[in-house]
Amino acid sequence: MNGAQSLIQTLVNGDVDLCFTNPGTSEMHFVAAVDSVPQMRSVLCLFEGVATGAADGYARMAGKPASTLLHLGPGLGNGFANLHNAKRAASPMINIVGEHATSHLKYNAPLTTDIAAIAKPVSGWVRTCKNAMSVPQDAAAAIAAAMRAPGHISTLILPGDCAWNESTVAAPKPQIPNPASVDAATVAKIAAILRSDEPTIFFMSGRVLMDDGLRLASRVAYATNTRLMSRMANGRVQAGAGRIVCETQPYPPPQAIKAFAGIAHVILIGTEAPVNFFAYPNMPSTPLPDGCQVHTFVTPEEDPLEALEALIEELHIPQTLGPMYELNRPALPTGEIDSVKVWAAVTALMPENTIFANEAITSARGAVENLAGAPPYDEIRTTGGAIGAGLPLAVGAAVACPDRKVLNMQADGSAMYTVQSLWTMAREELDIVTVLFSNRSYAILQGELKNVGAEMGGPKAEAMLDLGNPEMDWCQIARGMGVEASRCQSAEAFADQFQSAIAAKGPRLIEVIL
Amino acid sequence: MNGAQSLIQTLVNGDVDLCFTNPGTSEMHFVAAVDSVPQMRSVLCLFEGVATGAADGYARMAGKPASTLLHLGPGLGNGFANLHNAKRAASPMINIVGEHATSHLKYNAPLTTDIAAIAKPVSGWVRTCKNAMSVPQDAAAAIAAAMRAPGHISTLILPGDCAWNESTVAAPKPQIPNPASVDAATVAKIAAILRSDEPTIFFMSGRVLMDDGLRLASRVAYATNTRLMSRMANGRVQAGAGRIVCETQPYPPPQAIKAFAGIAHVILIGTEAPVNFFAYPNMPSTPLPDGCQVHTFVTPEEDPLEALEALIEELHIPQTLGPMYELNRPALPTGEIDSVKVWAAVTALMPENTIFANEAITSARGAVENLAGAPPYDEIRTTGGAIGAGLPLAVGAAVACPDRKVLNMQADGSAMYTVQSLWTMAREELDIVTVLFSNRSYAILQGELKNVGAEMGGPKAEAMLDLGNPEMDWCQIARGMGVEASRCQSAEAFADQFQSAIAAKGPRLIEVIL
Repeated sequence: MNGAQSLIQTLVNGDVDLCFTNPGTSEMHFVAAVDSVPQMRSVLCLFEGVATGAADGYARMAGKPASTLLHLGPGLGNGFANLHNAKRAASPMINIVGEHATSHLKYNAPLTTDIAAIAKPVSGWVRTCKNAMSVPQDAAAAIAAAMRAPGHISTLILPGDCAWNESTVAAPKPQIPNPASVDAATVAKIAAILRSDEPTIFFMSGRVLMDDGLRLASRVAYATNTRLMSRMANGRVQAGAGRIVCETQPYPPPQAIKAFAGIAHVILIGTEAPVNFFAYPNMPSTPLPDGCQVHTFVTPEEDPLEALEALIEELHIPQTLGPMYELNRPALPTGEIDSVKVWAAVTALMPENTIFANEAITSARGAVENLAGAPPYDEIRTTGGAIGAGLPLAVGAAVACPDRKVLNMQADGSAMYTVQSLWTMAREELDIVTVLFSNRSYAILQGELKNVGAEMGGPKAEAMLDLGNPEMDWCQIARGMGVEASRCQSAEAFADQFQSAIAAKGPRLIEVIL
Repeated sequence: MNGAQSLIQTLVNGDVDLCFTNPGTSEMHFVAAVDSVPQMRSVLCLFEGVATGAADGYARMAGKPASTLLHLGPGLGNGFANLHNAKRAASPMINIVGEHATSHLKYNAPLTTDIAAIAKPVSGWVRTCKNAMSVPQDAAAAIAAAMRAPGHISTLILPGDCAWNESTVAAPKPQIPNPASVDAATVAKIAAILRSDEPTIFFMSGRVLMDDGLRLASRVAYATNTRLMSRMANGRVQAGAGRIVCETQPYPPPQAIKAFAGIAHVILIGTEAPVNFFAYPNMPSTPLPDGCQVHTFVTPEEDPLEALEALIEELHIPQTLGPMYELNRPALPTGEIDSVKVWAAVTALMPENTIFANEAITSARGAVENLAGAPPYDEIRTTGGAIGAGLPLAVGAAVACPDRKVLNMQADGSAMYTVQSLWTMAREELDIVTVLFSNRSYAILQGELKNVGAEMGGPKAEAMLDLGNPEMDWCQIARGMGVEASRCQSAEAFADQFQSAIAAKGPRLIEVIL
């Protein structure tokens, strides 16, 4: 058994049985070895940002890591933006990055670069294999590090000789420690704050945003008159009819400031303190009012469900839940299309347990109002602000949940970064409907240009935010990569096309001309 | 004048008057400021790898840096692969990477990451601006560092406040030191080796591969019975009729070993010692025979023309040149298309002073034989082994040389990484003909799978190298991004389409079905 075979068997032993691949020469032994381990599935991606973004989407929906196979430093570099998003989503992931054979490195061949340096900013764990014999234990350590709560990126750098030399038997599934527990003193402290009856917000991200976590938080919130708010962008949120109503921190700083106005305490569950996404001249970095106290209740490394149960016990909180979403599908809209009508039609027609891979950006206008009446769904979003996550997240979610419909609500500018995802959707026959909002501009930046106070822009500045010259034809782009596509300019046409798309299985793109 | 305006004016003062941009919120002051400096041209790219690859292509053809505008760590990460290629081509470049405002960093907002860590492996110079007042001197230092021989990547990280706060007057063009001189002792030592009459190769890269450098090298080579060989992949090579015949180090190690067989001395001009691109089991890393001595004549930092002149004087070498290419256009091929016929038709029809942006990979078969009879041309190639360079290099070359035809000879698998380049070609109406070799596979890897000795691959391995399911339709992809396209399956059809493409101005894609 060579190092590559032992590596793949160790991954499979550790329940990592999927690899999003974009290999090169230095990964050829891994490629060859995949067939020797029947349980390992490989999904080819034609750009590394697709592979890393898909692994992120998979982890969010499967609750366990996928692996990626990347080609030396440039391959990892191409995957960096979506690794950044995955890190901010606390998604577990195992990157296998090929490297020159150990003896070859000193010759500074053309592809030589400092792989570990690129890996470190996004990885919780980085290791370069020393020899083929150590590969199984390295791989097991990578899995353990990735699965440590709340989830981390492990990057294992695999020199060619470590893949091709004789190795030893694969390692068993490593021990994964349980998430840490919140101590009693913290529970008591938070209980005291909640008893004070001062205006308080639970500010949340991570595991607590799943239905069971939100129900626990809702019991506490209802009994103590506390507001529930999630971070701006989260790895995964469960919402829709029968689930707990939860605010989200608004993106524009003035709205965020308004949302926190009058709040005395912000209690953190699974996240750091609220911050504005960007800084602006003459605008504070934090939306919190002066004197507002921030208290860490549950760190991202700790178990929020256990902590909330303890708090419920401490405060003798009854079963009663706070407000829940109710099914209230809107009527099908008519007339000229806009994003609000798209979200209305989607809400009217979507199946239960849809997974939204949401990178609609400015075309999210209408989402909150309409989805308040939607059947139960999961939403996964761009978490780290690196656009180009939507399509790959949809790929990963569809691989993780083949029995659920994935709706990729996608802005056009962002879609271009990882447009190669469409090909993988077609190859794997993934059940994804991409709703492509074509506004032919970096619309959010047109707003931001004003927000930063930079009003002296002229035609060159405008051209940098305009995608209309030439106009992209998304139907041709999608068909060119094997995905069936259609275009619509009216609400009726959208509803028609969407209805037929969700009735079928397999990838489909609907270009909405805004 | 705010920091952004002072930065752009300093760039223009330093003769950096072009910016390949993919901005976000943190770059909005730069965007707004571009209109205040009329000499600065901005070219929008819809993916950062297009921007960095285009800046590389521009630098190779213009001999001076372009700037790029990138959005924080993820934007730089997306640009990494082509920065790696640019570093290996010794292309000067100035990256302006936006960063959160200094006061915002401590809040760990979603886009926060260690930008400098990603920049370092590819940059010769990295600096984060401390405040708006220092921006002009920072920008001037970036230019000076980039232009230091042989050319380097400078990465200037620009926090928002450094862009929007009041700055000072722009800095003047910085002093650029001349390349270092080779000392007399080294010239004498090399002369002694050449007098020894032992089998010797000049192994070359960089500036020496321009016509004037090759002519000097050829005089020495002819007089001393020395072979001329270039590195495997070079930033820019001048060849074609009337120019010096120069071997290139072959890619397959067995051929490279054969090329160096019997050689006693390898004399380096502007490069390090020859190395095989990858390591393979039971294959040495270097193609050099045992006992072959490697001598550094001219380092990349030194002036090869001056050094060769000194050597010519030392050895009293006459004007006589060695072999030159002669114009010998092949007949137009007929019948079923293959890559050899494509190169024949291209050589038959191409205009003088064509710029080849060559990322044909396995479809380069036929290039060397046919181009031996071509009119004078420049060739720029993927230098660092990070595929996805061809299209962006073509963009940059066409911007640098608007009066010359750019032929982008492009493999399909590689094209996908930076397919967004097509849009910029259309927007800027760049005079580029992309010849897209569609073999629907990572063909080079099919060979590499055998080379690494990994013969146990099965259907899963094969699927990872196969791009045929689904087949990409490059005409639709190109048209979807605004580029006129056509497809051909015969040599006659290719010649027709190619002839009409080169007769017109503007971007065009020809999909060659292999």
